[in-house]
Amino acid sequence: MLYKKVALIGLGLIASSICLSLKRAKVTVEVIGTSRSLKTRSKAAELGLCEVLETPVETVKGADLVVLCVPVGAMRDIVKEILPNLKPGSTLTDVGSVKGGVIESIHSLLPVGVNFIPGHPLAGTEHSGPEAGFESLFDNRWCLLTPLAGTPDEPRKKLKYFWEILGAKVDFMSPQHHDLVLAVTSHVPHLIAYTMVGVADDLSKVTKSEVIDYSAAGFRDFTRIAASDPTMWRDVFLHNKEASLEILERFTEELLKLKTAVSLGNGELLFNYFSRTREVRRSIVAAGQDTSEANFGRKTS
Amino acid sequence: MLYKKVALIGLGLIASSICLSLKRAKVTVEVIGTSRSLKTRSKAAELGLCEVLETPVETVKGADLVVLCVPVGAMRDIVKEILPNLKPGSTLTDVGSVKGGVIESIHSLLPVGVNFIPGHPLAGTEHSGPEAGFESLFDNRWCLLTPLAGTPDEPRKKLKYFWEILGAKVDFMSPQHHDLVLAVTSHVPHLIAYTMVGVADDLSKVTKSEVIDYSAAGFRDFTRIAASDPTMWRDVFLHNKEASLEILERFTEELLKLKTAVSLGNGELLFNYFSRTREVRRSIVAAGQDTSEANFGRKTS
Repeated sequence: MLYKKVALIGLGLIASSICLSLKRAKVTVEVIGTSRSLKTRSKAAELGLCEVLETPVETVKGADLVVLCVPVGAMRDIVKEILPNLKPGSTLTDVGSVKGGVIESIHSLLPVGVNFIPGHPLAGTEHSGPEAGFESLFDNRWCLLTPLAGTPDEPRKKLKYFWEILGAKVDFMSPQHHDLVLAVTSHVPHLIAYTMVGVADDLSKVTKSEVIDYSAAGFRDFTRIAASDPTMWRDVFLHNKEASLEILERFTEELLKLKTAVSLGNGELLFNYFSRTREVRRSIVAAGQDTSEANFGRKTS
Repeated sequence: MLYKKVALIGLGLIASSICLSLKRAKVTVEVIGTSRSLKTRSKAAELGLCEVLETPVETVKGADLVVLCVPVGAMRDIVKEILPNLKPGSTLTDVGSVKGGVIESIHSLLPVGVNFIPGHPLAGTEHSGPEAGFESLFDNRWCLLTPLAGTPDEPRKKLKYFWEILGAKVDFMSPQHHDLVLAVTSHVPHLIAYTMVGVADDLSKVTKSEVIDYSAAGFRDFTRIAASDPTMWRDVFLHNKEASLEILERFTEELLKLKTAVSLGNGELLFNYFSRTREVRRSIVAAGQDTSEANFGRKTS
């Protein structure tokens, strides 16, 4: 059973992809969205993504499902604002990349009778805004749900079904485990990519045009990740501090090991290390989580 | 004026792409190749890439251009072997990712009358071997040539023209500068990607299947880079130690800065940093060195 009325707070990449994916599924559901920015609201209306209203408080009225599609740091204020209009028995979820921090900032505010089920679709691109969405964004991607103890079975199942309609596969885990897993598969890789691009941009011995022109040797992949939405990523690190620092610590130790190998000319250690990591790639391609095409099959010439 | 006879030592990704690209150009040139491995030679012959001979020494006989397409660490021994058969007036080049180290290990061996012009096409994929090549690999990519002082003008021009026929743009620079630029745009990014994938693979708190399944949140991009040929990359770090360590040092300093910002919850620093790096991406796309399509336009579902 799908929800009758879905309210989207925020109309960026994720919300616009939800709209387009629901259209593709040809399901009967009323979708209403809002954004703080007039420009975003106008764009979303122009694209015909969904019905667009001016404020969160009117958008959530009568909704069976409310999805917070804004950066993690903006969620608490929005929840305070929409509280009076949340329908008893409805479900509140979000799409934030951090779960522990979101729960901490929202949970205590919520009235009994509203089912809060935090969520995170592992899908995105380096683009943002309502025009960045596309209908297949969630296809074959995982959406992780981290319900709190005491959440009834029925709303869990309903939210799972919602994400499956959008093309995603759904898994349940604890918020703490989610934040650790994502620190490894997402947060620290992003921080590292941002750092590498920052280093290159800063280096006085190499010109900016050299960095740009000769980027195809590997660096350009890092720049795609380091082009992601700055507000969203600031909030990720402000809200997933502990796990991010833990994984960063491991990364720094490991990098020192490889740095020492380079310094000492330890070819055997380097060769063995580089052979092992090749296997991880093969598994990801085999699991359908990336393409086997060379260079992601991208066309650049 | 193109060369009459080109000898390729090594028949992997780069050599096979040279063969296919020359076919596409419909130029009259005799191409002969060899590889140490019987399996590679058989595969190359089966694919009809070029005439395949058993040994380097017979392959280079009468060649106007000899291209070393083997890992950097294998070059010195091959040059020793082919020395007697290098034609006076011919050009010897290579496609190694490091230039200072190659020159150091080869230059003193060479007889007067052979023009040694080290080169490096900034093109490649995570795949290797003769079946990995494709005709458009060099299109719109840069090939950097690092001739030594005293190299006459004519052979420089001829080698430049050769790479242009293959679709590449050509630039000249000193070997030392090449090695620093590549440490930034390629070598250190690769080492970092290898490290991050190694950390994820090692982490006992997160299962391997979680790392694989949830890789689409950013990590999978790192695994593509960390799937590159282990022998080639071992040799890169053995031969570009100084510049790699210099850039690694800068990277480590910068990462500490961001780590401190995460630890202190300095959102302003993080936001400003993440905004600046977005610009670098825009410039790379504008320079035609990467696609503007979301997620590189890859298809994974």
